[in-house]
Amino acid sequence: MSTFGQFLRVTTYGESHCPSVGCIVDNFPPGVPISEEIIQPQVSRRRPGQSSITTPRNEADIVSIQSGVEGGVTLGTPIAMTVKNKDQRPGDYKGDTMKQYPRPSHADFTYLEKYGVRASSGGGRSSARETIGRVAAGALCEHYLKLAHGIEIIAWVSSVGNIHHIPPTTEYPFRTQNPEFLQLLQEVTRETVDKTTVRCPDPEVSAKMEQLITEFRDRQDSIGGTVTCVIRNVPTGLGEPVFSKLEATLAHAMLSIPATKGFEIGSGFEGTEIPGSTHNDMFIRNPITDSETKNGFLKPKLATSTNNSGGIQGGITNGANIFFRVGFKPPATIGLPQETVTFTGETDGVLEAKGRHDPCVVPRAVPIVESMASICIMDALLLQGGRKMATFTPQV
Amino acid sequence: MSTFGQFLRVTTYGESHCPSVGCIVDNFPPGVPISEEIIQPQVSRRRPGQSSITTPRNEADIVSIQSGVEGGVTLGTPIAMTVKNKDQRPGDYKGDTMKQYPRPSHADFTYLEKYGVRASSGGGRSSARETIGRVAAGALCEHYLKLAHGIEIIAWVSSVGNIHHIPPTTEYPFRTQNPEFLQLLQEVTRETVDKTTVRCPDPEVSAKMEQLITEFRDRQDSIGGTVTCVIRNVPTGLGEPVFSKLEATLAHAMLSIPATKGFEIGSGFEGTEIPGSTHNDMFIRNPITDSETKNGFLKPKLATSTNNSGGIQGGITNGANIFFRVGFKPPATIGLPQETVTFTGETDGVLEAKGRHDPCVVPRAVPIVESMASICIMDALLLQGGRKMATFTPQV
Amino acid sequence: MSTFGQFLRVTTYGESHCPSVGCIVDNFPPGVPISEEIIQPQVSRRRPGQSSITTPRNEADIVSIQSGVEGGVTLGTPIAMTVKNKDQRPGDYKGDTMKQYPRPSHADFTYLEKYGVRASSGGGRSSARETIGRVAAGALCEHYLKLAHGIEIIAWVSSVGNIHHIPPTTEYPFRTQNPEFLQLLQEVTRETVDKTTVRCPDPEVSAKMEQLITEFRDRQDSIGGTVTCVIRNVPTGLGEPVFSKLEATLAHAMLSIPATKGFEIGSGFEGTEIPGSTHNDMFIRNPITDSETKNGFLKPKLATSTNNSGGIQGGITNGANIFFRVGFKPPATIGLPQETVTFTGETDGVLEAKGRHDPCVVPRAVPIVESMASICIMDALLLQGGRKMATFTPQV
Amino acid sequence: MSTFGQFLRVTTYGESHCPSVGCIVDNFPPGVPISEEIIQPQVSRRRPGQSSITTPRNEADIVSIQSGVEGGVTLGTPIAMTVKNKDQRPGDYKGDTMKQYPRPSHADFTYLEKYGVRASSGGGRSSARETIGRVAAGALCEHYLKLAHGIEIIAWVSSVGNIHHIPPTTEYPFRTQNPEFLQLLQEVTRETVDKTTVRCPDPEVSAKMEQLITEFRDRQDSIGGTVTCVIRNVPTGLGEPVFSKLEATLAHAMLSIPATKGFEIGSGFEGTEIPGSTHNDMFIRNPITDSETKNGFLKPKLATSTNNSGGIQGGITNGANIFFRVGFKPPATIGLPQETVTFTGETDGVLEAKGRHDPCVVPRAVPIVESMASICIMDALLLQGGRKMATFTPQV
Repeated sequence: MSTFGQFLRVTTYGESHCPSVGCIVDNFPPGVPISEEIIQPQVSRRRPGQSSITTPRNEADIVSIQSGVEGGVTLGTPIAMTVKNKDQRPGDYKGDTMKQYPRPSHADFTYLEKYGVRASSGGGRSSARETIGRVAAGALCEHYLKLAHGIEIIAWVSSVGNIHHIPPTTEYPFRTQNPEFLQLLQEVTRETVDKTTVRCPDPEVSAKMEQLITEFRDRQDSIGGTVTCVIRNVPTGLGEPVFSKLEATLAHAMLSIPATKGFEIGSGFEGTEIPGSTHNDMFIRNPITDSETKNGFLKPKLATSTNNSGGIQGGITNGANIFFRVGFKPPATIGLPQETVTFTGETDGVLEAKGRHDPCVVPRAVPIVESMASICIMDALLLQGGRKMATFTPQV
Repeated sequence: MSTFGQFLRVTTYGESHCPSVGCIVDNFPPGVPISEEIIQPQVSRRRPGQSSITTPRNEADIVSIQSGVEGGVTLGTPIAMTVKNKDQRPGDYKGDTMKQYPRPSHADFTYLEKYGVRASSGGGRSSARETIGRVAAGALCEHYLKLAHGIEIIAWVSSVGNIHHIPPTTEYPFRTQNPEFLQLLQEVTRETVDKTTVRCPDPEVSAKMEQLITEFRDRQDSIGGTVTCVIRNVPTGLGEPVFSKLEATLAHAMLSIPATKGFEIGSGFEGTEIPGSTHNDMFIRNPITDSETKNGFLKPKLATSTNNSGGIQGGITNGANIFFRVGFKPPATIGLPQETVTFTGETDGVLEAKGRHDPCVVPRAVPIVESMASICIMDALLLQGGRKMATFTPQV
Repeated sequence: MSTFGQFLRVTTYGESHCPSVGCIVDNFPPGVPISEEIIQPQVSRRRPGQSSITTPRNEADIVSIQSGVEGGVTLGTPIAMTVKNKDQRPGDYKGDTMKQYPRPSHADFTYLEKYGVRASSGGGRSSARETIGRVAAGALCEHYLKLAHGIEIIAWVSSVGNIHHIPPTTEYPFRTQNPEFLQLLQEVTRETVDKTTVRCPDPEVSAKMEQLITEFRDRQDSIGGTVTCVIRNVPTGLGEPVFSKLEATLAHAMLSIPATKGFEIGSGFEGTEIPGSTHNDMFIRNPITDSETKNGFLKPKLATSTNNSGGIQGGITNGANIFFRVGFKPPATIGLPQETVTFTGETDGVLEAKGRHDPCVVPRAVPIVESMASICIMDALLLQGGRKMATFTPQV
Repeated sequence: MSTFGQFLRVTTYGESHCPSVGCIVDNFPPGVPISEEIIQPQVSRRRPGQSSITTPRNEADIVSIQSGVEGGVTLGTPIAMTVKNKDQRPGDYKGDTMKQYPRPSHADFTYLEKYGVRASSGGGRSSARETIGRVAAGALCEHYLKLAHGIEIIAWVSSVGNIHHIPPTTEYPFRTQNPEFLQLLQEVTRETVDKTTVRCPDPEVSAKMEQLITEFRDRQDSIGGTVTCVIRNVPTGLGEPVFSKLEATLAHAMLSIPATKGFEIGSGFEGTEIPGSTHNDMFIRNPITDSETKNGFLKPKLATSTNNSGGIQGGITNGANIFFRVGFKPPATIGLPQETVTFTGETDGVLEAKGRHDPCVVPRAVPIVESMASICIMDALLLQGGRKMATFTPQV
């Protein structure tokens, strides 16, 4: 299925070697000022070739709006966006080898099992280029969320291999109880994140991460990492129990990104080891006293003194910062020789990738995580907006 | 949204104190022998009151098929199933206290923010009773998967608090490389799992887990844990890129279960620290040489020598065991006093739960995890079945 | 597929001889006062045995709300409703004949072709009893639409066989230009409709229709008819181009009712013969000068002087009365002997129905048409509500 | 909503004056030989400027496949197709008049009410150009249906104004009983249809229709008509009760086409006047004795001696020809002056269209009707294919 979302629906298309990749965003609100200049930065942040630790393929990736916008304003009709592919014939593996041998931990084999045919690039839609459509759609949503509700969505690299930014410590074995981590959630900006090549907001940790990636690159190997994302200023009431609880749609969104292996919200797996008496987030009076309404959403009367829940309780936002972490495996394409066998299972062989490849995907994954988060939040916001319009006077 | 699945669609209904809870399963295949006796065991495994470490509320929970089955065989029409609620008025917190104070880390507050009204039980659909409909639907799907494809789905408790079954060791810092873990994936049965109260297949570890839960229960506190699940004998080709990759729908399914905080597939978060050269799963000739077809699905020619992928590559099954882990937080309802504030934010107060409650949910979560996994796999299987019927002769 | 609607989703279940039939209504707004007393009247209007011209089977059909309502108010969670079946074994055709012979123009044959199995009643879900779930859901929606927006939905029998209420005349060859018809649209009430057995608001025409039905009943034959439906006080802006234009979802809804053969909106098929210069509806100042807002929907500044469009232009409501007509074929079950052949195609035979059957379905179809219309309008209203909440300041 | 279909999903985008229009077709089967040459003919048949009775705007409308096809074969991944717009600024009405006055029976007013903004063309997505994406998608589906199942889908103009091809006669007051009509259903080809400008297969009737259209054109007025469509060689078992009965999805599809006012299947509205004893289609042995299987679908053992049902019973195909009729209103854009009022309701005015416009849409609607029918049948076929793969051995 190439569509994500229930009311705000994003449909993507395209693989590595077709004329273009892109998306259609349906049910985007009308009247929103929008232009390609607003979309392009995130698309460019996703692009390869941004630094010595990312693959140097220079893809221009210029986004073009095809419909749904006139006079710089959205019409409420489907917004189609496209990015042209340069017709790069796949040549990452020697000669015809790749046609006969499935690359280890790539999708060549499973795509053939599923579809009975194979794109020249192997698993065409499993290509990282597929994510361009998501990023364009996500940038659109993020723009709206910021404009209409002041919502901020910021992701960063929280680990590369075993180098962790704010790891568990003796004093704070659980990160959600570490004041440094909570402060980061409150203060991190995209500008800070983008100051370093790795996109980790701490320059020192970032330098170590970059060093580690360089080492893996130089030995023709690869390494994974994690991306953490915070969503601030979210109205309460978003998320649709029981099957579209917000953490469920976020998990769905994140695990649909290539190379992801895990997702955790709030206290996450660490939270399974915290006693309930400590884990429970106590309710307090909302210290932000201005009870203003923003586009129909009221500021809540209560807040919580801690945030192990990660801003979501019972699948619904409680107004606190939403934060989650996504794990990415090491890229499968490496220069080291690897033993494999032909698709037919008849002949053994060895594959080794030529050229240079991303030794670590997390720096480029940052805008993809932000984009999928934006789409999730926007969909939940529109659904709850419809409910609010329809709700009768509250009767507690 | 109360519907899960794209072709095999499960819709659940019901909260704690209404006449019944249940589900409608749409597009279940016709001709399948089914009866309440097949569904009841999983519903009973989910039930409270099964041991001294679960809440002793004795809910009968007898499932009743309302439609879609005649003469012991499914008709292909919607299968409705119901379980009656005993009308237990909520009395877990003193007097009217609960009406005025939101329980910490419960959904009372967010439900009120979202809907403007509140069920007497607080966050009605966030109640664990909502999962009965899922379990009934999942038991139906599991029955089909076993019968038609020999698929086995088994979950167990892999940790309680900081007690882990097969934790990372010096020799095997990454679990997917530990032979003991891989053997467990291959051999674990539901019977083994059910031999212990905690539902951990290792009796010794299980005893420690039970001891820990008892301690938390006795001090009126609670503790979390993890559930690991394996799916064996899955045909290749299941999962619908790019937004319904199988790991994405599994993550979605798992994070929609109450109290979940994390999901990881295959190597998971550990996999982010493994070098690509080790993490890649090498292709080998499929050692199972019988290339039989089972209900239209062919056995694959290739297998992998390792399984860091967790049976899914590019969002599509590769025929290896699928396995994943789900993290559950400590239950929010505890006997210890907790400070809170009224819904209006005006008055401070203290809540303390009366009676006995689940000090740890993971033992009862086991059948829920299995059920949601069954629904995911069944939906993916039917979707791929439609594609296979429609595919033209493969042209590699 | 047993679910209808995009945001307001109705899922029905049940066939003739299972324990119960019913529905789950998802995403119904919270805070709405509701009870079984509000639902029952429409369910009872659908019931057989109401007069000498309907089948005398006395089905009690008592609706029971299972979830989603507490203290007489909707919670915003799924509302499940059930109606018990009396276990009436099918005996309408002699002995085992029906098991061997498909009934002409029934769904026995196609259900068997589709599902490979057959309910004892033949085409189980094609039974009229399936519509009970729709009517219960529709009554819920109609109640909300009336309460929140003053919307009125009234259907009536507009023809039986060749007896038409307000047929084309020499003066008014096109009904949408006949003042009598337009006045009827404005003034007809459910009370007027229910005054006659046939449910045609004109007592004289109704008597003729009843006479015709009696004749067909007495000669063991059957006859069809049409139902016309008007929807008044609809806000502008409802309907979701391009694939959920309101006339498209109404057509979908109506053609999903058993025995329907046609649908037309506004001028309908007659409109294909009217010149554009006459058919175009001219815009005028809205004569209703109070520009009040009702639950977020503003009264429009313009109206039209004629209404060939039937209240919908470009798939979107323009504030005028919506009206449409639905054609129902003669019931397939008749007492006259009919030649047929066994399912295997091997043996010829004759079928003749025993007992009494509906010689004409249109009187009982009236509440079903109203119900499906209510569900359509409600879904469109909630979707547009979400859009309105999200729309930026209009920039004409 | 801009997506149609449940498994085979078509999403369209684009309005009159944006860079391009087009579609994404998701879940199209893999391995199907396809190229732009296969798609273009239907897109060209939809194009304006084909004759003196259609609007002479010369739009090239060249379709371009963007993804999902490699080496001339579908990959099973989303197929995006685009057609560039020539940037024709709207100038059909004098000066700025159109910005102030809503055109009668156009969607200018309702689009503004719905979205709060307006495309320069008025109701942008209500433009006929939106249908290009549908036709491209439909041509793709039709190609598959023909190739894989020998299914033929042919539509033609069955009336223009009051000139009907095969009208009701004294001998055959009901068309489904007229041998000439039944023979036409069996024998009509696209070649015959395309021999005349009007696309009516009878040259004499066609000449009269053309004459009538010319008269309306010359007096700057417009006229409507009907299109009839037949679908031959359809497997049994297609259609998904109860809400996706095949006649319901066909009705939905047809009423989503601009300018449609009515839909009838089989005997249609005439069928409401036929006695049940005549209307029922008697089952007979299938005269086509070859019980071959075609791509998994078996030829049925039974057929019917008449076909008032129009090939669908209980919402499911019975193997007989499917046929239906669609009513189109006269085009709203006419040269005659029409009184109107400004959007604000403040000032009266007169609109008269400049240039030449389609005086009758039905000739160009023929490929659009065929396309939407193709999409419906393809979706139903894939859904039933999934069920067939999953069905257990039939147990009659």
